[in-house]
Amino acid sequence: MCFYLDGTVNMYMRPLEGVTVTVDLEEMKIIGFWDRLTVPMPKAEGTDYRESEQKPPFLPPLKKITVVQPDGPSFKIDGHKVRWANWDFHLSFDMRAGPIISLASIYDLEKQKFRPVLYKGFVSELFVPYMDLDEEWYYRTYFDAGEYGFGLCAVSLEPMRDCPENAVFMDAYVVGQNGKPVKMSQIFCIFERHAGDIMWRHTETAIPRTIVREVRPEVSLVVRMVSTVGNYDYIIDWEFKQSGSIIATVGLTGLLEVRGSRYTHKDQIDEEVYGTLLAQNTIGVNHDHFLIYHLDLDVDGDSNSFVKSNLKTTQVPDHGSPRKSYWRVVSETAKTESDAKIKLGSKATELLVVNPNKMTKMGNHVGYRLVPKSGAGSLLSDDDYSQTRAAFTKYNVWVTPYNKSEKWAGGLYVDQSRGDDTLATWSQRNREIENKDIVVWYTLGFHHAPYQEDFPLMPTLSSGFELRPANFFESNPVLKVKPPQDVMRLNCSIFKVV
Amino acid sequence: MCFYLDGTVNMYMRPLEGVTVTVDLEEMKIIGFWDRLTVPMPKAEGTDYRESEQKPPFLPPLKKITVVQPDGPSFKIDGHKVRWANWDFHLSFDMRAGPIISLASIYDLEKQKFRPVLYKGFVSELFVPYMDLDEEWYYRTYFDAGEYGFGLCAVSLEPMRDCPENAVFMDAYVVGQNGKPVKMSQIFCIFERHAGDIMWRHTETAIPRTIVREVRPEVSLVVRMVSTVGNYDYIIDWEFKQSGSIIATVGLTGLLEVRGSRYTHKDQIDEEVYGTLLAQNTIGVNHDHFLIYHLDLDVDGDSNSFVKSNLKTTQVPDHGSPRKSYWRVVSETAKTESDAKIKLGSKATELLVVNPNKMTKMGNHVGYRLVPKSGAGSLLSDDDYSQTRAAFTKYNVWVTPYNKSEKWAGGLYVDQSRGDDTLATWSQRNREIENKDIVVWYTLGFHHAPYQEDFPLMPTLSSGFELRPANFFESNPVLKVKPPQDVMRLNCSIFKVV
Repeated sequence: MCFYLDGTVNMYMRPLEGVTVTVDLEEMKIIGFWDRLTVPMPKAEGTDYRESEQKPPFLPPLKKITVVQPDGPSFKIDGHKVRWANWDFHLSFDMRAGPIISLASIYDLEKQKFRPVLYKGFVSELFVPYMDLDEEWYYRTYFDAGEYGFGLCAVSLEPMRDCPENAVFMDAYVVGQNGKPVKMSQIFCIFERHAGDIMWRHTETAIPRTIVREVRPEVSLVVRMVSTVGNYDYIIDWEFKQSGSIIATVGLTGLLEVRGSRYTHKDQIDEEVYGTLLAQNTIGVNHDHFLIYHLDLDVDGDSNSFVKSNLKTTQVPDHGSPRKSYWRVVSETAKTESDAKIKLGSKATELLVVNPNKMTKMGNHVGYRLVPKSGAGSLLSDDDYSQTRAAFTKYNVWVTPYNKSEKWAGGLYVDQSRGDDTLATWSQRNREIENKDIVVWYTLGFHHAPYQEDFPLMPTLSSGFELRPANFFESNPVLKVKPPQDVMRLNCSIFKVV
Repeated sequence: MCFYLDGTVNMYMRPLEGVTVTVDLEEMKIIGFWDRLTVPMPKAEGTDYRESEQKPPFLPPLKKITVVQPDGPSFKIDGHKVRWANWDFHLSFDMRAGPIISLASIYDLEKQKFRPVLYKGFVSELFVPYMDLDEEWYYRTYFDAGEYGFGLCAVSLEPMRDCPENAVFMDAYVVGQNGKPVKMSQIFCIFERHAGDIMWRHTETAIPRTIVREVRPEVSLVVRMVSTVGNYDYIIDWEFKQSGSIIATVGLTGLLEVRGSRYTHKDQIDEEVYGTLLAQNTIGVNHDHFLIYHLDLDVDGDSNSFVKSNLKTTQVPDHGSPRKSYWRVVSETAKTESDAKIKLGSKATELLVVNPNKMTKMGNHVGYRLVPKSGAGSLLSDDDYSQTRAAFTKYNVWVTPYNKSEKWAGGLYVDQSRGDDTLATWSQRNREIENKDIVVWYTLGFHHAPYQEDFPLMPTLSSGFELRPANFFESNPVLKVKPPQDVMRLNCSIFKVV
């Protein structure tokens, strides 16, 4: 792909459309060049995003705001082990996956011990297909982990900007092309999030002559990495809550991949352009982002089952009750892989990983819920070449028995793959998954039809999922969180603007 | 409903099951009493949520954390007008709806003027049906706004707990039963949220000998109210972003409505119990929460249209391209109300309110997207009495032409209503909604099958929706947000623990 750098650092907004170059990677020579058509070059004006290049007027500046921990953070980092509040986990870096969270356990006050939750969790693959059939575009169906290295594309985080003032940073190391270790600086940040949310509360007004009010503000722990795969910036957060929830969030920002175009106004368009006219001669091409997470949950032990709790409407026989209907929970335990392929949608279903060998005192199986925030799946047809390689996007959820060779949903070798070594193929064996060491695969999808606000750089768009305890504890695990010590600032003058 | 207060302030966990009392509200006398069956009373032990009643061990306390604005907040409040960054809106209090956001406009740097977005937005009704058919339960299908007053149930917010340190509070006034004004203290809080998120960023590594990195941290404005309708606490947030997004979030916390039960272990259960055994003799009853928002958008003027942008898979004819498929956006403008009744689910559709009379320079209609975070709808059958009153839950989205009498989706008089004056009935007229002053109604739904973690008080569960600009601006409206002044703390000793 060719871009023009003159007049802006935002080369992605200045594509040289219609040019195909063939490179011999062994010779490192251009061996073919085809200039199929001439398309006007989008202007540089308005594309640069650097502060230094902006001209007034500016939005009104906000007053200074910062987060302060006078006694330092509440977490401890020992090598790659992180200990915070009731959580204990290991954070490592992988060239392909980026952050890997492993051995995440939570301390159970009642049982007086750590209990395992997540043996290992990471982004196994990303699939980013563009919806443009043209000669120079049809093949833009990227696999950002397997083809590029989601970890390799990680960028240094900027203190006070990428992460708040109270963040601690961690470096990463990769193997360089000469086999020697290469340091990547400030790849992870770890910080306590104090967003103004409420962990739990209640005001009781129904008791005569008494008002009861108890409120606990939320403080959580965030582990962040940013991977900039060419034009796009992915903000990958793993957030731990004292309540036992693990929340994975992905923020999409950075630059769109746009095509040059002869059009300067929508009215001129009389053909399929595969996207939105964002600026003169600039089409933001429709595309998707699918991130598939490998979630090897070990809920209170490694033998787990996957349960679909369907909320089913039940009709009430005439005269049985003044009510005609209600819903009840009808749970199905998945026996084999085919029982656990799920397209999220209009069905009211709760998805759980339970330990069938462990029960609460009340007799409920201990479990964790997967609470998805997006149900977007691939809209491509199954026989499309890129879709055969990314067939893991056909369902939002898959469950497999643990197999150490099944780590990368798009296959170990993704370049030029034909889908033989992918999640969809492995699952065809329809293996048993009940009361086994299982892996849940969740695909977080974003359909992205661009809007003008995404030009020349897009404001962050976020989604994710939550792993939430579901009868894992005997009762609310944060009832015994003490209210925070209130901190009040006495004097502003000691704040220095740096 | 009868509860037992001995030994706990959490009377909701100690129901006197099986008792029905009839009260003559004019005489204020009990005129009927039926004790249908005797059920063991759940124990008080473990139900109290007050800090003072907790016994060790506690979760390890976190170190102090606070948000600081040395020069004060960036917003200005003038009566009920709030001005912050590029936003300007009016915040008022309503006994029935709680907070009402009106006349929300955003300053457009390029056009050098404020442009209207949301004429009026509020929670029009809440429907909370329980899924228990028993004599004392079948009628528990609450309408928290129309029957109780969602605003009337608002509670005073606790500084440093319900809202962070940098919050400003606002009182509300209601009409007392004697016609005189009654002050409700600290009902709203307004604060800038600095959660550690990234507004936008990019690192450019593809330019030889140059690294470009630009990052803008996110700061947003939150308006919060908490309404405690009996047992449940609803945290209602309206959040404004400089990017033009308005995000509505509802957090559910507080106490479940539970039924007494003879069971102390799940294995004993041999009948339908309508919920989950949470503790001895305590069943958390299955239920839903549906909050329907009245969203009178005025996108750049009051004449708007509602557009469904369907992402449709298109097959490519053989040999037309190496690709077999792609998706494109097929937009439909809703002509009448029936075109705009939407059940969210597996269909890939973007929902927009556009101004068909205003275009960007590129020729796109200016618009805002409704981005739902939940697609849950009612599972009750249409002929169920409570469902006829709450028929607005049948679809997640409705669009009506503005009509000043159509404010309350469950009808003006909800008690004993039969659904004649509800959104579903109004919409049967199938009025024209194209290029008119329209109102979008969005139902945010939560199905709640309780888990043991919800006992004796539930950790907050959140969802919501976003109104996001979609070709409203010519380009990214936050490109010209200056990076914040970095603030660094020099000395901890000036922080006093209060």
